[in-house]
Amino acid sequence: MKFLHTSDWHVGRTLNGWSLLEEQEWAFQQIVDLAISEQVDGVIIAGDLYDRAVPPVDAIKLFNKTLARLVLEEQIPVYAISGNHDGAERLHFGRDFFQPQGLHLSTRLEEAFEPIELEDCQIFLLPFIDPIDARIYYKDDKDKEIQGIGDALAYIIEDMEKAFDPDKAHILVTHFAVSKKDDQDGQSLRELMLSETSNTVGGLTNVTSDLFKAFDYVALGHIHTRFASPTKRVHYSGSPVAFNVKEAKRKEEKGVYIVELDASGDLSQAFHPLEVRRPILALQAPFETLMLPEFYKEQPCQKAWFAFDIQLSSRKELEGVNVRARLEEIYGTDIVEITFSRLGDVREESLTVDQHLKDLEMQSPQEIVSDFYQTVTGGDVLSERQTALVESIFEEIERSRQ
Amino acid sequence: MKFLHTSDWHVGRTLNGWSLLEEQEWAFQQIVDLAISEQVDGVIIAGDLYDRAVPPVDAIKLFNKTLARLVLEEQIPVYAISGNHDGAERLHFGRDFFQPQGLHLSTRLEEAFEPIELEDCQIFLLPFIDPIDARIYYKDDKDKEIQGIGDALAYIIEDMEKAFDPDKAHILVTHFAVSKKDDQDGQSLRELMLSETSNTVGGLTNVTSDLFKAFDYVALGHIHTRFASPTKRVHYSGSPVAFNVKEAKRKEEKGVYIVELDASGDLSQAFHPLEVRRPILALQAPFETLMLPEFYKEQPCQKAWFAFDIQLSSRKELEGVNVRARLEEIYGTDIVEITFSRLGDVREESLTVDQHLKDLEMQSPQEIVSDFYQTVTGGDVLSERQTALVESIFEEIERSRQ
Repeated sequence: MKFLHTSDWHVGRTLNGWSLLEEQEWAFQQIVDLAISEQVDGVIIAGDLYDRAVPPVDAIKLFNKTLARLVLEEQIPVYAISGNHDGAERLHFGRDFFQPQGLHLSTRLEEAFEPIELEDCQIFLLPFIDPIDARIYYKDDKDKEIQGIGDALAYIIEDMEKAFDPDKAHILVTHFAVSKKDDQDGQSLRELMLSETSNTVGGLTNVTSDLFKAFDYVALGHIHTRFASPTKRVHYSGSPVAFNVKEAKRKEEKGVYIVELDASGDLSQAFHPLEVRRPILALQAPFETLMLPEFYKEQPCQKAWFAFDIQLSSRKELEGVNVRARLEEIYGTDIVEITFSRLGDVREESLTVDQHLKDLEMQSPQEIVSDFYQTVTGGDVLSERQTALVESIFEEIERSRQ
Repeated sequence: MKFLHTSDWHVGRTLNGWSLLEEQEWAFQQIVDLAISEQVDGVIIAGDLYDRAVPPVDAIKLFNKTLARLVLEEQIPVYAISGNHDGAERLHFGRDFFQPQGLHLSTRLEEAFEPIELEDCQIFLLPFIDPIDARIYYKDDKDKEIQGIGDALAYIIEDMEKAFDPDKAHILVTHFAVSKKDDQDGQSLRELMLSETSNTVGGLTNVTSDLFKAFDYVALGHIHTRFASPTKRVHYSGSPVAFNVKEAKRKEEKGVYIVELDASGDLSQAFHPLEVRRPILALQAPFETLMLPEFYKEQPCQKAWFAFDIQLSSRKELEGVNVRARLEEIYGTDIVEITFSRLGDVREESLTVDQHLKDLEMQSPQEIVSDFYQTVTGGDVLSERQTALVESIFEEIERSRQ
């Protein structure tokens, strides 16, 4: 089987208020074109299809158009799941109508256990879930104690294996933060880091790649850079578009993977970068440099979003200067961010995976509460009772949303 | 062709905060059962599928379940349009996937002109639109001057007729306020009423049934009572459930129509009432009567929503009495409304169609502005310039939503 692996489309995302929809449309066009020219058997979208539960109408239109072109016009099946940004139940509408036409979409845990059967492989679609969802799903099975998402995934995968056809390869599409299992000391870097804090808080990302050893390929979504991939077989595609200034600073190419897998599990994969029409340019320089024709004539003005970090030699340096207006005269009005730093400060150029996981948007509500508590108390961790209380509150919220 | 005509489902509607979802589910179950037992060729839902553009998740689930049962399990095609309460563009998602499986859904004007071809009839699905939509659609045709919705519909129907197959019957499914053409003096009651005010405001309901004479049956939605139907062939089904106390006061049976139409246009129709599980009971009486066992034992307590209008003989009569608490002791906690009136005042028992049309929820934004203006100025109507300004503002809002 040959497929295209992408994730984290976040259709409808904005960048400090600027719409990224045109850039997203351009990326999706390239993805469909590539799927056609590579004659893939299917396109995998590993979650975070939309940027939020109730996406704007333009985002819905673009997503609809892209799916209709892929599935209905080009007859290329799509295998998609909901991510933590999606409104799983909203997205679920029409699922049973989509399936027979080749649009396979899972948004609920109970939909994950019946694989889609292809000639030489089985595809399992496991949407992003919270430990609470697994506790509800397994509520009649008293033996299954589910603390964090790691426990939940272990039980889920155990059940998936029961449906394994030994003559086929096994693919899992899912949406979690997964780190590499470090075999040398039997403990992952992530686990080491977590051992410093509490690792019993529900949803805390203590998932390592060894959990997925039954699968020949795990198409992951959630983390926006492919460099966070724990192994060759447990892999992030990264998002097709850079979404914020921090991502833009890493200057990494965005794209998708073409993955080939045969029934015996032999795997080959190739990264295909996508062309960027309008980049996010993060420029750090003193104000006078930014005003120099020698400098700005090098920049693709009017064709980029600009994020300026202006280096100051003194606090009063730009007093009375309308910085935005002056910059707009030269760089156009698409200036998405202006920050200031002291001359001599070096800007952080790259983020580690763990820093990524620390991004608020990657965290579960429980993690955010837990981190907040540690910050305000100067390092105390939540007690078991407090943890249980936090969990029960979110559980109640979750239920009320059902 | 034999079909079931229903409309104004308003899935997700609440009654002063109380969810009507269970009652709606019960109604939809009966509708599907009837469609099966009557062996209809299709079910028509003439708009206002949901109660609002972004319906709650439970409403989406119920609507999805009902459609899946009708179309996928029972193989009964559905012919549906969006109404003024629906978010047309949101509802549009997946349309091209639904169509091949028998779920026909129109949410945009441009989808109205190509009929669905059945053996002996053609079905045209015209969603609720605003005159603005028609102006945009016909923008290249300078001859078509569109003031109100009447002009728009005349042009639209003219274009539909071009696709008419003379060997088949012609059905239109649409969602507007339509009144009877009074043939005796060539002017409808509605037109007479409108002539008192301004009838150039976009969206104002100056549509009469004669506009639809080309069709053998017009399945209407918008007005919640079937008694508002202008003619036998231009017909409202009414909503399947009573949604508010005002509707409940009319005590009219709610239901659906089974309509039979042959290729020559011969028509027969029968109303099928739906069973109510939990009625809205509007009771008007002095407080002491409401407290009498002889009175309240006659009421289906715990099984109804109660709306009390308490008749007072003096202002101070119930001073210091916790009226709600006392009523809840007897009638249960599902008391959706408590109002007070003077003993002797007779409650209005029925509403005319024109009063219906005056309901805020039936009106377009332009009408509401126009009415508001007349109220605050004591009767002045908006000038042409003011009307144009109001229209251009709403047009801009509409465009920004695209």
